[in-house]
Amino acid sequence: MKNYNVTPLNKVIRGSKRASYNQEEIHAILDAAYLCSVGYVYQNKAIVIPTAYGRIGETIYIHGSLKNRMLLSLLEQNDASLSVTLLDGLVLARSAFHHSANYRSVSIFGNVRKIDDPVEKMDALKQIVNQMVPNHWDNIRHPNEKEFNATLVLAIDITTASAKVRAEGVIDDKSDLESSYWAGVIPIQQKALTPISDELLNEHIVIPDSVLDFVKKNQ
Amino acid sequence: MKNYNVTPLNKVIRGSKRASYNQEEIHAILDAAYLCSVGYVYQNKAIVIPTAYGRIGETIYIHGSLKNRMLLSLLEQNDASLSVTLLDGLVLARSAFHHSANYRSVSIFGNVRKIDDPVEKMDALKQIVNQMVPNHWDNIRHPNEKEFNATLVLAIDITTASAKVRAEGVIDDKSDLESSYWAGVIPIQQKALTPISDELLNEHIVIPDSVLDFVKKNQ
Repeated sequence: MKNYNVTPLNKVIRGSKRASYNQEEIHAILDAAYLCSVGYVYQNKAIVIPTAYGRIGETIYIHGSLKNRMLLSLLEQNDASLSVTLLDGLVLARSAFHHSANYRSVSIFGNVRKIDDPVEKMDALKQIVNQMVPNHWDNIRHPNEKEFNATLVLAIDITTASAKVRAEGVIDDKSDLESSYWAGVIPIQQKALTPISDELLNEHIVIPDSVLDFVKKNQ
Repeated sequence: MKNYNVTPLNKVIRGSKRASYNQEEIHAILDAAYLCSVGYVYQNKAIVIPTAYGRIGETIYIHGSLKNRMLLSLLEQNDASLSVTLLDGLVLARSAFHHSANYRSVSIFGNVRKIDDPVEKMDALKQIVNQMVPNHWDNIRHPNEKEFNATLVLAIDITTASAKVRAEGVIDDKSDLESSYWAGVIPIQQKALTPISDELLNEHIVIPDSVLDFVKKNQ
């Protein structure tokens, strides 16, 4: 089990007992989400943009059009940070002060590269699709040359990272335990509903296993 | 219907037909989420942190401990940006290129104030709880003086904002419509599961209506 280096950038200061720098744990959180929030500096302000992504090893891939301001700003800056958060529950304590949430979140810091190598670029595009729905790449038309060339793909090679996870019940002050207030957790889960086939679909085409498996796993 | 001013900061450049600057629409997205992603500049890098929040009018409130690095950095910078994203569906096209997501997202830009006025501060804390579970503030113990003084509350007064929303089916190239690939949307929804009462709860205490209503509305 490898840990990421702890630096002033990724060190979790508040709630440090919920922190982890473990690579495997951080990968698992990255692999469980659909969107990440990328931060970039524009006019000395930190701008946050949600985007799709895919992870291969220690690299996170994001993509967009050739003129995407976020991607171009990241390239110029050379480094990037992004965050992924999965909400698992609302923690409703007796006291307002101890209200909290159960969640899994990661902060990633990395160096930015433009992908020019066509093999790495296609692998990245594949992974971005499969991050949404595992194995779905095998069931779609892959990019043609025009589409491929119109897509800018950036690699963020992870330099350091941290996770913060809360996964427990209510923690109230002892002095509140005898009060008449209710306390508990409302679990929250992101669910997949029944897929809606495109209206223009040829009627003999069936929903592929990648989609059925995904829905079954997330329903 | 008021619109926010469009400036280089909040102007949606890519996919501008999905953009909105409408105040009501932006408020509705803000009110539908539990967590926002706040961006701040630290060591010339944009850092992204998820946090709870509450909205009252044109102000967004966030809170934390007195030593919270994000809050202190935001105060120092004087301005803040944050993003809220709700994922509504995975859009699986015939072609990799037209894969997308249905979502509602907002980017908020604002000025940062520390709340010293105790009335505004208590109202903010109330709203942060009620953002999670509407009307739940009436069913909990409010902060005592010690807790109140140990909490830093910042106001982000919205200066400008934008929304980006995708809410439609697959858009494939005409030339792909006769292909043998499936296409469709998998709707995604954040659901509340059955609340789990605290183990230490006095047995005569029942789950309050705020929680029951929330679960019913989100199940």
